[in-house]
Amino acid sequence: MYDAMDLVPNKIINCLDKGFVEVVDVMPRLLPEGQTCDYAICQMARLSYQHGTKTVNEDKGLIRYLMRCQHTSPFESIEIKLNVKMPIFVSRQFCRHRTSSLNEVSARYSVMKDEFYLPKPEDLRAQSKSNKQGSEGTIPESDAEMYSNAIQQQCRDSYKWYTNMLEAGVTREQARMILPLNLYTQFYWKQNLHNMLHLLALRMDAHAQYEIRVYANAIFDIVKHLAPWTIEAFDDYNILRNAIKITSLEKDAFRNYTAENAVTLPQIDSQNKRERSEWRQKATELGFTVPE
Amino acid sequence: MYDAMDLVPNKIINCLDKGFVEVVDVMPRLLPEGQTCDYAICQMARLSYQHGTKTVNEDKGLIRYLMRCQHTSPFESIEIKLNVKMPIFVSRQFCRHRTSSLNEVSARYSVMKDEFYLPKPEDLRAQSKSNKQGSEGTIPESDAEMYSNAIQQQCRDSYKWYTNMLEAGVTREQARMILPLNLYTQFYWKQNLHNMLHLLALRMDAHAQYEIRVYANAIFDIVKHLAPWTIEAFDDYNILRNAIKITSLEKDAFRNYTAENAVTLPQIDSQNKRERSEWRQKATELGFTVPE
Amino acid sequence: MYDAMDLVPNKIINCLDKGFVEVVDVMPRLLPEGQTCDYAICQMARLSYQHGTKTVNEDKGLIRYLMRCQHTSPFESIEIKLNVKMPIFVSRQFCRHRTSSLNEVSARYSVMKDEFYLPKPEDLRAQSKSNKQGSEGTIPESDAEMYSNAIQQQCRDSYKWYTNMLEAGVTREQARMILPLNLYTQFYWKQNLHNMLHLLALRMDAHAQYEIRVYANAIFDIVKHLAPWTIEAFDDYNILRNAIKITSLEKDAFRNYTAENAVTLPQIDSQNKRERSEWRQKATELGFTVPE
Amino acid sequence: MYDAMDLVPNKIINCLDKGFVEVVDVMPRLLPEGQTCDYAICQMARLSYQHGTKTVNEDKGLIRYLMRCQHTSPFESIEIKLNVKMPIFVSRQFCRHRTSSLNEVSARYSVMKDEFYLPKPEDLRAQSKSNKQGSEGTIPESDAEMYSNAIQQQCRDSYKWYTNMLEAGVTREQARMILPLNLYTQFYWKQNLHNMLHLLALRMDAHAQYEIRVYANAIFDIVKHLAPWTIEAFDDYNILRNAIKITSLEKDAFRNYTAENAVTLPQIDSQNKRERSEWRQKATELGFTVPE
Repeated sequence: MYDAMDLVPNKIINCLDKGFVEVVDVMPRLLPEGQTCDYAICQMARLSYQHGTKTVNEDKGLIRYLMRCQHTSPFESIEIKLNVKMPIFVSRQFCRHRTSSLNEVSARYSVMKDEFYLPKPEDLRAQSKSNKQGSEGTIPESDAEMYSNAIQQQCRDSYKWYTNMLEAGVTREQARMILPLNLYTQFYWKQNLHNMLHLLALRMDAHAQYEIRVYANAIFDIVKHLAPWTIEAFDDYNILRNAIKITSLEKDAFRNYTAENAVTLPQIDSQNKRERSEWRQKATELGFTVPE
Repeated sequence: MYDAMDLVPNKIINCLDKGFVEVVDVMPRLLPEGQTCDYAICQMARLSYQHGTKTVNEDKGLIRYLMRCQHTSPFESIEIKLNVKMPIFVSRQFCRHRTSSLNEVSARYSVMKDEFYLPKPEDLRAQSKSNKQGSEGTIPESDAEMYSNAIQQQCRDSYKWYTNMLEAGVTREQARMILPLNLYTQFYWKQNLHNMLHLLALRMDAHAQYEIRVYANAIFDIVKHLAPWTIEAFDDYNILRNAIKITSLEKDAFRNYTAENAVTLPQIDSQNKRERSEWRQKATELGFTVPE
Repeated sequence: MYDAMDLVPNKIINCLDKGFVEVVDVMPRLLPEGQTCDYAICQMARLSYQHGTKTVNEDKGLIRYLMRCQHTSPFESIEIKLNVKMPIFVSRQFCRHRTSSLNEVSARYSVMKDEFYLPKPEDLRAQSKSNKQGSEGTIPESDAEMYSNAIQQQCRDSYKWYTNMLEAGVTREQARMILPLNLYTQFYWKQNLHNMLHLLALRMDAHAQYEIRVYANAIFDIVKHLAPWTIEAFDDYNILRNAIKITSLEKDAFRNYTAENAVTLPQIDSQNKRERSEWRQKATELGFTVPE
Repeated sequence: MYDAMDLVPNKIINCLDKGFVEVVDVMPRLLPEGQTCDYAICQMARLSYQHGTKTVNEDKGLIRYLMRCQHTSPFESIEIKLNVKMPIFVSRQFCRHRTSSLNEVSARYSVMKDEFYLPKPEDLRAQSKSNKQGSEGTIPESDAEMYSNAIQQQCRDSYKWYTNMLEAGVTREQARMILPLNLYTQFYWKQNLHNMLHLLALRMDAHAQYEIRVYANAIFDIVKHLAPWTIEAFDDYNILRNAIKITSLEKDAFRNYTAENAVTLPQIDSQNKRERSEWRQKATELGFTVPE
């Protein structure tokens, strides 16, 4: 038996300017030689089938089968406990995932530290024109400089008032209301792997905000060492990773394909602009083209 | 405003020989004229975007967008309450879905009725050779006759002993242990639509046992009247309904396609027999062929 | 049948300076004449016992019995949907309750409005000396005046920079990080009554922060009209409401009581100061005294 | 560091005639010398307060404080994985607890073994007259003998028909419907300690069926070694363990007490027979008497 934590080369991964993700514990923690945490998934799954330990090859195949067919419960057998430090506006997105056990620093109980996420000028992004909840490109350098400074100055001012209020005896639970959303908070996050993969799929996705993707990627870097076969299957089969979903409408388009058209697929039977554009994008990924 | 229950033509749907699914209540219950329960999903989702009511077309498009992109939380805004009577061996599969509110007849408190699921000879299926947890085809007629009778006789005997024990004063909570798994039980099942769709996807699927599919189909028949746009999107976009998932390996196979090969796609780069056969099946559905 | 919403005299209750709680929908929505939503609880519970409708008296007794004995699942049969506007630092406490369906205004998608919780000078509280996460009393008037103004000024400045950044093209998802935690947010909150009562017990309690108690009290004011028998039982039997828990140690103290000591109960067999003081407090509530 | 499993002297505890509970894994698994799993609870809780490791005394006090005040989230930091073999009618009660990760033997995939819970004559209990869902006392010896034999015979017959059907090619998923509810099943059960304590409180209680109490007691025997301070606090403070809840009505009765009445407390202001009898029982436990 050996310690599963030894599988993870970097137990603390820095995120943004002052944050981090640290793996604190994992279940299963003690593993038979030559195994990873994937082991617990097979153990769980095999009970259903009343079989004992199998060859390495069969274990990997089993995990891939479970992932492919959405037999999700065995992935709940792995539990991962993280220590996370992230800005509050990021943690608010993170905590929308309701399936974890969470303990956070209390700003009622403790004085918050003077730690804010301060994007450098080059970290400031421009509003996306096409995606109302996204960003793309950068903003003019001089503006970026000014706003980066302004953020810093506002944080300094807020924190000064926060400190003043505390010194004057204002209760911590009220004084903290003046602190901005880029204040760093810290929490333990304990979650089973099934739910964690769901979080990772959504938060590593290109549509997620950059600042949360940094954290999702850091967690991914930890999990891929703990459960490598699961992560390989996740990457191969999850439609937010490297798989693609062909909708019913797109299936019909495929069926209307004839090789005479070389690699040109017809458009889907829908006037929805977004859906048509999604189809064109998917077809391209598969090596086909779709007319405008 | 009108009563959403009016949307459902058959509020009770019979299942198997003595079971049923009955819709008891739904949230939202009172709807603006011309709306269905889909309405509550749009209401929920639009808050995120700070928009008011929209045209019918935009509402349908919004629901399709939410379903396509896995923005699942607005689908939690619909709540459906069912009254279900099903055999215990089916209810044990059903109750693996942990996301509902459930109240069941108590065999500690009440005397169970003499109601068992008694398959007719032609309802008995043969064990599938290829699928260890499936069935295919039928069994010889004379055997079927015998076993159908045997099931009936066993139920009769068990129930007689059950009654005898109760009359002799044996406690109900123990006497019931003798009753077989095809005994009917009854329960209220209240669940939000997001979780109910997950249940339906898994339990309407061809891999689910026939007896539970009967119930899933009955629920589907109710839900499609309550939230028709959601169900249309579900059918179009869910990979257990009419959509298809193209895995990373299958994507690579597509990319190696050239129109010179007519509609023949290469095999995936894997020796896994099951995965290769799944690929051939999907390719066929898309109008292509894959060599053995 | 009549509309359950008619039970609630004030569907919108204002909270703090700009917030509110609004009841949007409830399940069951259509009720038999003379019934309240308590009705659905009895319906759920009676299935377990295979009984039909009962007299009003028996229904009330059943609800009290279920509450007293922690038979909690029938209370899940009521679902309440709220529209809530509250400051972010309050919503972060609120959202620790993971058992609801939630849809919140997105600061990635929408420009946040210039609405902050601005406590008046007399609303600022002093830090409690005895309770590290509480407050008690007020702070000197001149300080209160100054800090109330400072909070307002900081919000004004933050919002100005927020607007400037948006105008300069900075993406909304980043610009919002400068806004302070007293910014108002808005969300739909849909939760079953069992889980909502748990939230209310914890958040109406004297140990909860004043600002969240305001919201919990507002929700309580709504729920008590929808399910009056449940609320009466909740008040009578919940130890965070009007019931008291006598611990094992305190039971032993009771057993050592003799009427000769008038109404003086012995201390518990523990040196824990907090626990001893809790005992003295409880004894007082029961009409006894406990020596220092 | 040492292995937390070493804390448990008996890792497998036999239950009923053929069942068992086995502890398979626990989180935290590797502990600092001198610590138990209680350690993880303190670690979780202290983050909220931003404090480091404390003295043993303070740790125990902290755990007692968290339990007393219903600060439940730190108890979610311990995860326990069990391997359980129990009769199906017991497992159906057990699985009403929806907060665990569960993998069960599949009777679609595997042939079920010839293992039934066969109560000996002296294990058969009589129906309680006062409690519709309970049992008390025994039944006449000759009846007990007869019914114990009948149960055994019915199981033998059912299993014979089950085997016959399988041999005739009937699919496993249907053939199993003939097996009675005392058939043994087996499953992995992984649950955090907070939820497990809730299960234990309800299922160790005198109102729970004897057959499930056997399992709850076995789990308790395991957990008390893993997290001894938590279990001590649980026993002291949980009202289904050794604490008592004094309802609002009972508080009023206490307040009307005068020492002149020796230790006689008045009845509560309610005509509810059950509630009056509960009060008399509680008063007795506290060393008082209540008139009929």
